[in-house]
Amino acid sequence: MGMNENVSKPLDRLSVELAGDMDRVNALIRERMASRHAPRIPEVTAHLVEAGGKRLRPMLVLAAARLCGYQGNSHVLLAAAVEFIHTATLLHDDVVDESQQRRGRPTANLLWDNKSSVLVGDYLFARSFQLMADTESMQVMRILANASATIAEGEVLQLTAAQDVSTTEDTYIQIVRGKTAALFSAATEAGAVVAGADPAVQQALFDYGDALGIAFQIVDDLLDYGGSTTTIGKNVGDDFRERKLTLPVIKAIARADEAERAFWERTIGQGRQDEADLATALEILRRREALEAARADAIAWAGRAKAALQAAPDQPLRRILADLADFVVSRLS
Amino acid sequence: MGMNENVSKPLDRLSVELAGDMDRVNALIRERMASRHAPRIPEVTAHLVEAGGKRLRPMLVLAAARLCGYQGNSHVLLAAAVEFIHTATLLHDDVVDESQQRRGRPTANLLWDNKSSVLVGDYLFARSFQLMADTESMQVMRILANASATIAEGEVLQLTAAQDVSTTEDTYIQIVRGKTAALFSAATEAGAVVAGADPAVQQALFDYGDALGIAFQIVDDLLDYGGSTTTIGKNVGDDFRERKLTLPVIKAIARADEAERAFWERTIGQGRQDEADLATALEILRRREALEAARADAIAWAGRAKAALQAAPDQPLRRILADLADFVVSRLS
Repeated sequence: MGMNENVSKPLDRLSVELAGDMDRVNALIRERMASRHAPRIPEVTAHLVEAGGKRLRPMLVLAAARLCGYQGNSHVLLAAAVEFIHTATLLHDDVVDESQQRRGRPTANLLWDNKSSVLVGDYLFARSFQLMADTESMQVMRILANASATIAEGEVLQLTAAQDVSTTEDTYIQIVRGKTAALFSAATEAGAVVAGADPAVQQALFDYGDALGIAFQIVDDLLDYGGSTTTIGKNVGDDFRERKLTLPVIKAIARADEAERAFWERTIGQGRQDEADLATALEILRRREALEAARADAIAWAGRAKAALQAAPDQPLRRILADLADFVVSRLS
Repeated sequence: MGMNENVSKPLDRLSVELAGDMDRVNALIRERMASRHAPRIPEVTAHLVEAGGKRLRPMLVLAAARLCGYQGNSHVLLAAAVEFIHTATLLHDDVVDESQQRRGRPTANLLWDNKSSVLVGDYLFARSFQLMADTESMQVMRILANASATIAEGEVLQLTAAQDVSTTEDTYIQIVRGKTAALFSAATEAGAVVAGADPAVQQALFDYGDALGIAFQIVDDLLDYGGSTTTIGKNVGDDFRERKLTLPVIKAIARADEAERAFWERTIGQGRQDEADLATALEILRRREALEAARADAIAWAGRAKAALQAAPDQPLRRILADLADFVVSRLS
């Protein structure tokens, strides 16, 4: 995330607010990523876990639980479990996408091999379910098992929808729920559940995480057509070159004339691209106001996230979570 | 498994005894492998699930639960969960091993791609945890989360131990627990747990599954140096060509003279093999009585499996499970 001093505040404030809890989460992550028999496991995990990720998902767990007045220890277990699921999906994603870089460093599949990434990912999935079992909450297990299924389903959907220019916005949102929002909403909902919050508050925090996650992913997809290498660690046009049907392109295709439709069909549908095509794509996206329309959607989802919080306890953390929703979209300006 | 009429009896008897339960397991598997959004998922899963696997692991769950007098429905959920974990590990194994064939048919990674195998495997893992959550038993969740971690750890250990000629029998047994025995023992233990069996019986059924799984895998590894293509669906010497350190080779290396040690170091350690090497390997294995020694180990583990059953309820199913342990080893004669 490209953060200037001003807009980074909500994440910084969350970090300060949750510093004690996060120290315990980080200690637990280091403890549980160990393996007595297979040293390859902590090597691969550490490469990713210690690469300076934002720990956004565990912070969402902790914030939701604290917001609901939780004083116990289960939210720490849960936060570590959520980070392990996230790390496992990153390892498997990099195999699936044949990625070379993640967070500005070579990926595990490149440093070791695909085998290690697949198997260490499986190990971290299993470890996350062990951590959840330690919370002794069957509802937490169910929330995270459901989220894991939605994540995998979304990834498969993305695999089969990729390069299909008839992909709709509905399908895109389903894919985004899988890729990003399912773990955000599971994190905030499960945080409320371990805190013993009543069902309306659990639902409010689920809705917050869901909308925040969707806003977050739309912004990510927009940055791919407008950010710079330095701010997001990937190059403008990566999604275009990989023929990913993201929201700006889906909107542009819906508004396309015959020539534009032929352009998208050739470049995304059939993958026949030359060097000038990215510039043409950007030109069409601008002409059809597709970036603006996607940006408006992201802002609307951030608004839904903030609105959902109205049903959550009125505590200082609520203010930070609301600001976080604005922050996510502010990356665009 | 190469079954002649005589030795196949225990599996057939189990199938007959558990036919009603297995019908429900199969119906549940078909129902839960569906995906509303991503049709690729049931396609890939069906390819594997309906390829005529023996359903040994779900039968172990059902048998353990019935043996303990269970009359409810959770053992069906659990049996489907165990089969999903097994199917997920097969999908991921075939990616890791770059396999071309499984159960005599092209593997999913070949028919679709590695991506689909990785992601559909992840989906089935998640589905299995959803099924477990439906049993409402936290102890079951814990048993299977632990087994999943042991499986992944064993696979990573195999990855790093492979081609290392200093691998010990202890390491081999750890790998085998991960590859095979952990899911067998989790199946039988969890079957006893859902049935509400007392801890001594849970332990007995764990021990049975563990010893049965180890015997099963040693036999598999032995067949690789002595079975035929028709009986096991793979070719003699596959493990040798893939430089896998299995029990016969580990025993032969422990008994090797200088020339033999150089042979193993070259062929397995460094992977420099020519066409005549498999015959030489078989000759050394025979000379050092390594196959006989590994066979004796398999028979001892089958004996331990039968001995463990003494603490389980004395019911007709117990007899079949004991015979199953003998059957596993009888594949060698």
